[in-house]
Amino acid sequence: MTQIKTKRERVKFASDNVTGACPEVLNALLKANEDDKTPYGNDDLSKNLQNKFSEIFEKEVIVFPTASGTAANALALSTMTPSFGNIYCHRLSHINVDECGAPEFYTGGAKLVNLDGNNGKIIAEELDSNISGKGVVHHTQPSSVSITQLCETGVAYNLDEIKKISEIAHKHDLNIHMDGARFANALVSLNCSPAEMTWKSGIDVLSFGATKNGCLAAEAIIFFKPELVGNLAFLMKRAGHLLSKMRFVSAQLDAYISDEVWLKNAKHANSMGKKLSQGLLKHKNIELAYPTDANEVFVKIPKNIIDQFNSQGYKINDEEWECKAVRLVTAWNTDSSDIESFLNIIKS
Amino acid sequence: MTQIKTKRERVKFASDNVTGACPEVLNALLKANEDDKTPYGNDDLSKNLQNKFSEIFEKEVIVFPTASGTAANALALSTMTPSFGNIYCHRLSHINVDECGAPEFYTGGAKLVNLDGNNGKIIAEELDSNISGKGVVHHTQPSSVSITQLCETGVAYNLDEIKKISEIAHKHDLNIHMDGARFANALVSLNCSPAEMTWKSGIDVLSFGATKNGCLAAEAIIFFKPELVGNLAFLMKRAGHLLSKMRFVSAQLDAYISDEVWLKNAKHANSMGKKLSQGLLKHKNIELAYPTDANEVFVKIPKNIIDQFNSQGYKINDEEWECKAVRLVTAWNTDSSDIESFLNIIKS
Amino acid sequence: MTQIKTKRERVKFASDNVTGACPEVLNALLKANEDDKTPYGNDDLSKNLQNKFSEIFEKEVIVFPTASGTAANALALSTMTPSFGNIYCHRLSHINVDECGAPEFYTGGAKLVNLDGNNGKIIAEELDSNISGKGVVHHTQPSSVSITQLCETGVAYNLDEIKKISEIAHKHDLNIHMDGARFANALVSLNCSPAEMTWKSGIDVLSFGATKNGCLAAEAIIFFKPELVGNLAFLMKRAGHLLSKMRFVSAQLDAYISDEVWLKNAKHANSMGKKLSQGLLKHKNIELAYPTDANEVFVKIPKNIIDQFNSQGYKINDEEWECKAVRLVTAWNTDSSDIESFLNIIKS
Amino acid sequence: MTQIKTKRERVKFASDNVTGACPEVLNALLKANEDDKTPYGNDDLSKNLQNKFSEIFEKEVIVFPTASGTAANALALSTMTPSFGNIYCHRLSHINVDECGAPEFYTGGAKLVNLDGNNGKIIAEELDSNISGKGVVHHTQPSSVSITQLCETGVAYNLDEIKKISEIAHKHDLNIHMDGARFANALVSLNCSPAEMTWKSGIDVLSFGATKNGCLAAEAIIFFKPELVGNLAFLMKRAGHLLSKMRFVSAQLDAYISDEVWLKNAKHANSMGKKLSQGLLKHKNIELAYPTDANEVFVKIPKNIIDQFNSQGYKINDEEWECKAVRLVTAWNTDSSDIESFLNIIKS
Repeated sequence: MTQIKTKRERVKFASDNVTGACPEVLNALLKANEDDKTPYGNDDLSKNLQNKFSEIFEKEVIVFPTASGTAANALALSTMTPSFGNIYCHRLSHINVDECGAPEFYTGGAKLVNLDGNNGKIIAEELDSNISGKGVVHHTQPSSVSITQLCETGVAYNLDEIKKISEIAHKHDLNIHMDGARFANALVSLNCSPAEMTWKSGIDVLSFGATKNGCLAAEAIIFFKPELVGNLAFLMKRAGHLLSKMRFVSAQLDAYISDEVWLKNAKHANSMGKKLSQGLLKHKNIELAYPTDANEVFVKIPKNIIDQFNSQGYKINDEEWECKAVRLVTAWNTDSSDIESFLNIIKS
Repeated sequence: MTQIKTKRERVKFASDNVTGACPEVLNALLKANEDDKTPYGNDDLSKNLQNKFSEIFEKEVIVFPTASGTAANALALSTMTPSFGNIYCHRLSHINVDECGAPEFYTGGAKLVNLDGNNGKIIAEELDSNISGKGVVHHTQPSSVSITQLCETGVAYNLDEIKKISEIAHKHDLNIHMDGARFANALVSLNCSPAEMTWKSGIDVLSFGATKNGCLAAEAIIFFKPELVGNLAFLMKRAGHLLSKMRFVSAQLDAYISDEVWLKNAKHANSMGKKLSQGLLKHKNIELAYPTDANEVFVKIPKNIIDQFNSQGYKINDEEWECKAVRLVTAWNTDSSDIESFLNIIKS
Repeated sequence: MTQIKTKRERVKFASDNVTGACPEVLNALLKANEDDKTPYGNDDLSKNLQNKFSEIFEKEVIVFPTASGTAANALALSTMTPSFGNIYCHRLSHINVDECGAPEFYTGGAKLVNLDGNNGKIIAEELDSNISGKGVVHHTQPSSVSITQLCETGVAYNLDEIKKISEIAHKHDLNIHMDGARFANALVSLNCSPAEMTWKSGIDVLSFGATKNGCLAAEAIIFFKPELVGNLAFLMKRAGHLLSKMRFVSAQLDAYISDEVWLKNAKHANSMGKKLSQGLLKHKNIELAYPTDANEVFVKIPKNIIDQFNSQGYKINDEEWECKAVRLVTAWNTDSSDIESFLNIIKS
Repeated sequence: MTQIKTKRERVKFASDNVTGACPEVLNALLKANEDDKTPYGNDDLSKNLQNKFSEIFEKEVIVFPTASGTAANALALSTMTPSFGNIYCHRLSHINVDECGAPEFYTGGAKLVNLDGNNGKIIAEELDSNISGKGVVHHTQPSSVSITQLCETGVAYNLDEIKKISEIAHKHDLNIHMDGARFANALVSLNCSPAEMTWKSGIDVLSFGATKNGCLAAEAIIFFKPELVGNLAFLMKRAGHLLSKMRFVSAQLDAYISDEVWLKNAKHANSMGKKLSQGLLKHKNIELAYPTDANEVFVKIPKNIIDQFNSQGYKINDEEWECKAVRLVTAWNTDSSDIESFLNIIKS
């Protein structure tokens, strides 16, 4: 028991994907397991997701549940980008550096055009000036834009920023995708509606992340424009992402977006992020690399303090991230006491 | 409650993928959910699977857990088949007709060479005579063979048949894959060891199915030859099949292969299959399309009896399968009473 | 000089691709070489091909010149077939057995569904009964049909046969492609107009072969329906098939279709084919494997006679073709004396 | 006649691909056309290229002739880069911006990592610091490096630069490719041997360009390491780049590398480049954007002078190139009088 405790502390703050499912999601799984059901998403629970998500987004959307965020991103982009297309994205973006080329695989070889942006976020003007060569047969063709919300520095795009980027994308007839791996955390941070953060700001397709914020393996590709769906159903099946017992993914999503579970989880994670961030900043040698908008804390910590943490079983380092800062992530299950234990290490 | 009961009956026998997880697997999920763990399969449970499977197969194997059987097949084949390669398979095989071209996608365009075989099974001689063109630049190159165990007619290859096919494959320097979506049912049917049904009979790579026989979404790609693994880890990640919370797939597999849960489930399913098969054959107008080797019953049923079943809420038909028979599938959770209710419909 | 003569005889009748360019085409090359011109097909000669081909086909067509027949076929099919699509073709077809998987490569993994047909030709009824699974996400999707004219047995589809096949294709919303590697030979054989043999019989896209019949390396992809062109220009460039000095391909095509050069060449080749066929049949031990419709002669020849030919420097065999016959091909430059020398070998 | 003259002037200096073939190459074509020959590169001329190129490079090389430079590059890179690989290249490189994604297509989705370099050339140190993530499953894998010689600014890498870059590549176990579209011009500029500019400086695979410098459509993929050839023959056929009458590509290459034709042509083009460059620089308002190392002249020209040129039938502009300079290219057939006419326009 003590040993388990120790192990648990080691991965705490490493990421929000070290967590399991929240009770509501787990119960939904158990309930879904009680009876036999039609496979491949033809069960009532799966079919009803269309309505549930449409309500949440205040618009009729088309939803494809999937167990993998990387698949959600790559499949979404593959409906918007031909094999000879350009996907404009931040050079730090997950699709560019952390998916082993999934967008390239699913599009059949599209090019990810890297933008420098600012603080991890694309800037509309830079995007605009990088879109060129349309119709010229020698050049890969501008096709889509992808932004991450929260972006890879833990910072949230505000609504104005999203709108400006979408406008540039649409001005050039490009479609725009949002990688919402931490969609709920960003939403809570901006304190706006799901509609406002997406289609009302010009987003065409969303990867709606749920795994990190209380599910086991559940994401959803959400189309705000039905004409963009294209052949997704076939592409998904062909990639092995249409699970036979799909209803267990749907059950997770259903519980997650019911009774504001997702928002409750994200609010908690964000407040823990703030608490952690503020606690660390009390130490004069520690400073933020990026603002703590939600549940990711990027801090520059002196080497000797890092060593202290790791001697206590944590595994943190400042080498993984370009900013040479440590990333600490809070989650739906982070306890105040987890943070206090962590902060106490520096004090001692 | 009554309504749920009605619904349940409707999908009964439709397939073994209408079921949920068995209690042991579900409990393992709950237990795995208690603590935070390292993501992407770097947790102890996932890592320990290598040993557990090695024990079961009496050989050091290399295991990649995945949530999807289609992905398991296509990823396995992609390590054995270049983009210009031939995969020899039965024309009825799942990889050929039910995966929307997944092997083609994952291999980058390989050709599935269809064999007619007999009763759904490949015949070694036909395979042999179809392998040609090696080294000739105009022809796609013979690369791999794939057999399904249970095959698509519910029939099991016996050990001699597997050995003969493997010998032909190896004689021509091809690798051989087994799609074991119903591996346990076949194993119980043949009453042999996992080793005997695979590498001892010449199989190089196995898709080890667990979803249909008591899991929610859990399969494993098992390599009996380490040199065939190649770049699978990258190909899997790139395809979105390396789940961040992979440990929940591993937890299912771990419980499934512990304490003979998998064999117990398959034995039950097979005995229910036999019971169903025998019950149906008592009616003089009903005959088997294929022998009932395990948990799949293919029967030719007069139209008026089919109508009787469907009027009671079942959804069965004899148009989906080439043999113009009805397929009925029993599972780990089929109850004797399910079969009796079903058979009673004809009696009345 | 004598030695060259010997060598020449060796390859005679091996194929029509052993020949060089006819004088008209060669002169066009020389003329095109006199001046500098805009690259990538933006020269006048290339642009004018649209009009010239439109005249020949009595319809406004869209033409893409290319140096490779395999590329012409695969590019054409890639505009009509998604990555998860089915291409229906004869099992002996060049795209299926002699292009090392080019259609699979260019489509991103489509499936070539093999039809048995009759005498090398697809039969409309068999095609009809093989098209199924439309809209079902588990199955690769019926997308296109491809026929070869002359087909791989040297036989020509007659207009009625083409029409029937096209009707079936269109009834199922599939597009139909003609691989016209020996288009001119077939046309002369049927004694009909280019329009009749293509769009008037329902053909949507044509690979117009010219290399075998008097060019060095020149083919054209011809679209009879502009809406099928899609992204071909980009796909072609991306594949390295938009040559910088494209005008030299265009120059060949221009000369080839001017002044009936192509028809003259094909008429000669066909008449030589007939002469060779008739000469061989005079020997009671030699029989035709397929009718000699044009310039390909498939004959069953006793082993000892084959040996006689090969002892004289020819390289012929009856093992390459499924029908266990020898294939002999005449060409635009076959001389009556070539045939006489050949036939004399048996006489002696 | 006068009109043809006018047209000719218009494209002069636009690129070296506006030219035709030099007399020696054209004569070789004519000679090759005299006789029938075995197709698909199995003729003596094609087979002998292995020896001829081996002599020129002072090493046994493996050569694949092809009609397209884009195909040569993409095919070469596809033997060195898996679908999940990184190709490091200059951001201005032809493979990155002018091949419509050919390397992505041929590799099955590799990522082109853009380097800023200096004056169009990669810098070894920048390359070194950009290679990371090896063995980490989340990241696309460093696989190959490609440099262009002459690079896209008309500048030649000197031997030391090539060596340093190769050393970095090999230090990280990457292979290095040289896009030698203007190989001869660079060679003449450096005044070194083909061996020195390639394998003696660490180059593993070369795209040997001949089209621009006196051929119609002829390039060669040259492997200095046989173990890198891999499955190229199949990949080439599969892409439609194994022409049936391949011998006419081989004939061009054979003549091109015989009797120092290629060097003679390049020397002439380079000297014309120098003459043009020097002539332009006499005008105080014109300055070089990059040094004129060979046959490409990048000059910044005032708008009114550009207008003057274009009013005389030239089509030049300073918008196509990032450096906002005009690119003027001399060729094997540029006449001194062409340059004088051009320069006279400014004088007047």
